Amino acid sequence: MTKSPRILIAGGLAAGPSAAAKAVRTNPRAEVMMFEASETISYGMCEAPYAIAGLIPDESRLVSYTPERLQEEKGVTVKTLHRVEKILASQHRLVVRDLRKRESVEYAYDKLVIATGAQAKRLNMPGEDARNVFPVSSRENVRAIMKYIDEESPVRAVIIGGGYIGMEVSEALRSRGMEVTVLHRHRLPMAGLETETRERILSELEKNEVHFVTNAKIEQLQAGTDGKVRHVITNRGTFEADLVILSLGVVPNVGLAKQAKIRIGATGAIAVNERQQTSADDVYAAGDCCEIRNVVSGKPMHIPLATYASRAAWVAGENAAGGRATFKGSIRAAAVKIFGIEVAQVGLSSDEAKEAGFEVATESVTSHSRVALMPGSSKITLRLIFDPNSGRLLGANVFGGSGAVQRANTLGVAIQQKMTVEDISRFDMIYAPPFAPLWDPVLIAANQAIKKVKSRQ
Amino acid sequence: MTKSPRILIAGGLAAGPSAAAKAVRTNPRAEVMMFEASETISYGMCEAPYAIAGLIPDESRLVSYTPERLQEEKGVTVKTLHRVEKILASQHRLVVRDLRKRESVEYAYDKLVIATGAQAKRLNMPGEDARNVFPVSSRENVRAIMKYIDEESPVRAVIIGGGYIGMEVSEALRSRGMEVTVLHRHRLPMAGLETETRERILSELEKNEVHFVTNAKIEQLQAGTDGKVRHVITNRGTFEADLVILSLGVVPNVGLAKQAKIRIGATGAIAVNERQQTSADDVYAAGDCCEIRNVVSGKPMHIPLATYASRAAWVAGENAAGGRATFKGSIRAAAVKIFGIEVAQVGLSSDEAKEAGFEVATESVTSHSRVALMPGSSKITLRLIFDPNSGRLLGANVFGGSGAVQRANTLGVAIQQKMTVEDISRFDMIYAPPFAPLWDPVLIAANQAIKKVKSRQ
Repeated sequence: MTKSPRILIAGGLAAGPSAAAKAVRTNPRAEVMMFEASETISYGMCEAPYAIAGLIPDESRLVSYTPERLQEEKGVTVKTLHRVEKILASQHRLVVRDLRKRESVEYAYDKLVIATGAQAKRLNMPGEDARNVFPVSSRENVRAIMKYIDEESPVRAVIIGGGYIGMEVSEALRSRGMEVTVLHRHRLPMAGLETETRERILSELEKNEVHFVTNAKIEQLQAGTDGKVRHVITNRGTFEADLVILSLGVVPNVGLAKQAKIRIGATGAIAVNERQQTSADDVYAAGDCCEIRNVVSGKPMHIPLATYASRAAWVAGENAAGGRATFKGSIRAAAVKIFGIEVAQVGLSSDEAKEAGFEVATESVTSHSRVALMPGSSKITLRLIFDPNSGRLLGANVFGGSGAVQRANTLGVAIQQKMTVEDISRFDMIYAPPFAPLWDPVLIAANQAIKKVKSRQ
Repeated sequence: MTKSPRILIAGGLAAGPSAAAKAVRTNPRAEVMMFEASETISYGMCEAPYAIAGLIPDESRLVSYTPERLQEEKGVTVKTLHRVEKILASQHRLVVRDLRKRESVEYAYDKLVIATGAQAKRLNMPGEDARNVFPVSSRENVRAIMKYIDEESPVRAVIIGGGYIGMEVSEALRSRGMEVTVLHRHRLPMAGLETETRERILSELEKNEVHFVTNAKIEQLQAGTDGKVRHVITNRGTFEADLVILSLGVVPNVGLAKQAKIRIGATGAIAVNERQQTSADDVYAAGDCCEIRNVVSGKPMHIPLATYASRAAWVAGENAAGGRATFKGSIRAAAVKIFGIEVAQVGLSSDEAKEAGFEVATESVTSHSRVALMPGSSKITLRLIFDPNSGRLLGANVFGGSGAVQRANTLGVAIQQKMTVEDISRFDMIYAPPFAPLWDPVLIAANQAIKKVKSRQ
C-alpha cells in the first residue's frame, strides 16, 4: 500500500458514508472518495414513512450529511451524480460515469468498499412507471409521494405488499386521511414473524380500517386516460386507486459485484467474511448489498437493516484503512410500530430455527406491561422460541403496548449470549408500578417456557 | 419430619403469602399456617403512592389476596390479628398472641419462615403520633392518609425524607393540588444514586414546584391546639404544615429473630444463606426482614424491594416444604417515576463499588430515546460505572424520558452476567424511529466507556 492509500467507496446512501468516515478516522492520511449515482447521500430511509405521515415536518432533515458537510467534517471527497459502472478488480480500478458531464473516467484504488445497497422489487408489468405509482426506495420517491399527496389529494391508496414498509406506509396514509387497501400475497401480513404475531397485526390493521386483502396476486395495473393507474386488478377483485405504493421488499444491488466475478452468496447478496472482505483482493462490501452472518443459525442471511449496514460499514471502512476490525454477525433485531402496537422480532423465527436444524418449542405469554391497576398499563405478548433440549433461547416475537420493543432488546441480549430460558428466569428486572409489574413479562414468559425444557422434566 | 409437616409463617404482608403458597405447592400435604398481626395480608405497598394520588381509584384493589382467598385458592391457613410474640427455637414452637381473644397460644412447627418485613424509621420525638402525621408503611396508614386528604383538604404538605417514597409521595400530593415541601437531611435527594442523577431529580422537583429543603435537621414537630402538627421546626427554618408525611426509610423487623438468638448480619437484617436458612435449625427467613447477597460486590445487603422479597420467599417456602431451591442474590435493580422523568438504578453505585474494592471509572452519556426527529423523542442519560481494568460493568444509573427504565434492565442483564462495556457495545439492539435511534443510547454509552478501559489503551 502507498503511504497515502486511496480508498474508493461505491454507493453513498447509508453504509457508504459510514465506511468512508470510518476510513478517514482510521487513517487520516488516506484519500477517501465516495461515488453516488443520485444527488443525495446519507439519507434516513427508515424515517421516510414518518415524513410521509407528516410527523417529521421537514423532509430535508432526513439527510444526515450533505456532500459538502461530509467533505468538510469527515474529510471524505464526495462525488454525487457519479455512477460506478464497472469494477476492474484485477487492475484495482473503477470505471465511473459522471452523469453531469456524461463521460466515464477510471479511478485507481488501493482498497474498494462496495456499498451499493438494495433496490425495491418490482412487479415487472405495464403501469408500474405511471405517475401515481411509487416504490418507497429513495429520497426522490419519498419527495414525489409527498408532493403527489399535497398536490393531488388522493383519496384511495392501494399498497402492494404487506411487509415492514407496507405496514408503516399504511399507517402514514391512514393518518393523512386516505382509504387504504393493502394487497398482500400471503394470508397474513409480515412473513417471517410468528403466526400469532401476524394475526395480531391483521386485527390491528382491521381495527384501524385498513382493508387487508389476503392471497392477492396482481394481474394488471390499469391506467386511465390521464396516465395514472386507476384500477389494480387482482385474482381477488379490482381495486380503485388514486395512489399506488409498491412495497414488495428489496433485492441487493449486486450487478457491479457479479460483473467483477465477486462471489455472491446463496441469499443473492455479496458474500463477505467477518472482516467484510469479498472474494476479490482489496475489495470490501457493507450494507444492504451484502450478506450478514446470523449468529444464531450460523448461516449467512440478507438482512437489509440500517443497524447492520452501519456496523458492517464501520468494519469495512476501518479495515480498508489498514485496521483489523471484525463484525461477527447479528441475531437480527427489528421492530415496527403498527398503529397502536409495538411489534418486535429478535433472533430466529420458529421456521428458521427448524431449517437451521434445531428442535423447536415455543411458549407464548400475554401479560401486563406495568402493574395492571396503573393508568397506561397495556397487554404485551411474548412468544419465546427455544430449544427444548437445552432450553437455549433462539428467537422471540414481542408485541403489544408500550415497552414491547425494549423487552425484545433484553431477550435479544439473551439470544446473543446463548442463554437459556432458565437463565432468563433469573434475570434481575426492575419492578415499579409505572413501568413494570412485580414479575416482568420477560420473567413470566421464561418461567412458563422452563416447563417445556426436557432436562427439567 | 412427620408425614404432614407443619410449616408456620410469621408475617403476611409480602414475603409471607408468597412463601406460604409456594410451600403448599411444593408439598400439598404440608399444613401451612400464616400469622399476621394486622387485618390485611398480601398488600401492594409499592402502589400506595398511586392510590394516594388518586390514579388507582379503588384502594382495596391493592390487596392481592384476602385471607379467605389465600386459604381457598392456595390452601394456606391464615390467622390475621395474630402477632407472633416469641420463637422458641430449641423447642420448635412459636408463642402467638391472638389480638381478638387477647390470649397467647403456642404452636409447634417443623419448619418456620420469618417474614416480619420492615418498619418505617421514626423521628422519635413528640408530635410524631399527631393525627395529621403519617408514615407510609401499612395499609392502615395509606387509608388514613387518603381519608385525611378527602375529609380535611390539607393545603400545605411537609414530607420528611427525600428517598424513593418521599419522591413518589411528593408527586402524589402535588397531583392532589397541595403545596409540597420536602425536608431532606442531605444536599441532594435519593442517597445511593449518583450525584448527576440526584441533581437531575432535584431540578425535576423544582420544575414541578416542590420546595426541596437541603441539609435539614428536624428539631420539633409543633402541635396546635387541635392536636395536629402545625409547624415543623428545623435548622433550616420553620415550615407550616397541614399534613406531615414521614418517609425516612425502613429498618428490618428483627426483634423476634434477635430474641431467639438468630444471627443478625452487619446490615442489621437477618443473615441467611442462599437457601434462605437462618442460623437456627429449621428456621428460614425471607423479605424485608433479611439480607440479600449483592452478586456484584459479593456482600450481604439490606435491599427492601418487593421483587427480592418474592424471590426469596419462593425459595424459603420451597425449602421449608422439603425442596432444594436457592436464591443466589441480586444486583439490586430499582426504579422510580419522578414527575416527568424515569429514574433507574442497577448494580452498585460508584461509592459502593469503591467500598467493595473495585477500581472505578464512570462514563455519562446523554442521547435521544428515539430518532431525534420523531415526535415523543426525549433525552436519556446513562451513567455507566465500570472497572477500568477489565471493563466489567458494575452498575448504572439511567434517567430521563420514556424508555430509561427498560434500558436499565438491559444493562442489568449485563451486570448480572459480568459483562464488560465492550460486550455491551456489541449488543444487537433494535433501531426503529418510533422506539430507538440508529445507535441505541446503551450502545453509545458503551462505546464511550470503552475508551476508558485500560486494556484497550
